[in-house]
Amino acid sequence: MPGLFITLEGPEGAGKTTNRAYLAEQLQAQGFSVTLTREPGGTALAEQIRDILLAPHAESMSVDTELLLMFAARAQHLAQVILPALAAGHIVICDRFTDATYAYQGGGRGLDCARIAQLEQFVQGDLRPDLTLLFDLPVADGMARAVARGKLDRFEQEQQDFFEKVRQSYLQRAENDPVRFRRVNAQQALADVQKSLDVHLVEIMDRAREQ
Amino acid sequence: MPGLFITLEGPEGAGKTTNRAYLAEQLQAQGFSVTLTREPGGTALAEQIRDILLAPHAESMSVDTELLLMFAARAQHLAQVILPALAAGHIVICDRFTDATYAYQGGGRGLDCARIAQLEQFVQGDLRPDLTLLFDLPVADGMARAVARGKLDRFEQEQQDFFEKVRQSYLQRAENDPVRFRRVNAQQALADVQKSLDVHLVEIMDRAREQ
Repeated sequence: MPGLFITLEGPEGAGKTTNRAYLAEQLQAQGFSVTLTREPGGTALAEQIRDILLAPHAESMSVDTELLLMFAARAQHLAQVILPALAAGHIVICDRFTDATYAYQGGGRGLDCARIAQLEQFVQGDLRPDLTLLFDLPVADGMARAVARGKLDRFEQEQQDFFEKVRQSYLQRAENDPVRFRRVNAQQALADVQKSLDVHLVEIMDRAREQ
Repeated sequence: MPGLFITLEGPEGAGKTTNRAYLAEQLQAQGFSVTLTREPGGTALAEQIRDILLAPHAESMSVDTELLLMFAARAQHLAQVILPALAAGHIVICDRFTDATYAYQGGGRGLDCARIAQLEQFVQGDLRPDLTLLFDLPVADGMARAVARGKLDRFEQEQQDFFEKVRQSYLQRAENDPVRFRRVNAQQALADVQKSLDVHLVEIMDRAREQ
């Protein structure tokens, strides 16, 4: 695959959206073609699936349903956006991908990670991100920022304990795969976060030029 | 599982809905508790997934997306409706189930049946219907009845060739598993279809009494 597949991971309130735009601007300024996208969603159809995932429902959503919807949206996003953009040599920057499924459904909800791995293999085959930036910050800080933004969705309404498990799951995955993950201290002021992103940008540009 | 899980399969226009009601009436008249349901759908949330599956979309839905949505709806339907009804000793009569996935996505769209089997095992474990009534009729007859009803959904807009493959796939599955399948000649007049259903009703009642 000629392009480069970068994913941004971390909780709500970690600054992924703001910094995704920053990364794209810097890369485009150096002449790289960039595709910005997000999960769950990224296509009109996948966003409809996202709506079902994020809306509160009168009936309880089974963990299998949640997992299958997540990967249904992902399959659509891969087919319509990510794979064509990579094939065209773009740097794809995706706000959340399968690591989020492991962190939220696996770590947060306690779903067996082997079941997640089964669907990951089913949908992605051997495709994995080339580089993953994990925006990490203490749970209380992320929640305070998310609350300040207004109305909470179905995931954001979970309790602090849930988000603590999500964070630990993310950190564990980063520790287990230092080749792919870069941890970004998202508790810092924005200017400092972006200074640390500049280091990663050098690596991203080097790798994109090697493709 | 103490209840009995009956599925009705076959194309649009085969009379499944009418005959599902007939089966339920006859069983209830003999004192059996019956749960009538359908797929894709069967719960408010699964019906939302059904809406995404059946609506026409501007972008092409990938085969994996379609398959994962199908099984997401199925997982929800099993957790909320089918498994609790079977546990309560009901006879569950479900309009379409996983055989439809093999017939439409496998036979119709040519999707690898091994991939369907993977998700079947993922979602259902070892649960399979106790008895499946296949309402079979020539493709042209089913299409004529569906067209007479009005607006066609995304599946019904497929070409005759697609429905021929769906029919052959259903017939093949019935032939491969005569213990579970009963073929109903749905080309007959309704009164004759119901006469043949009366034979199957005797078997259903016997088996429900044995549970």
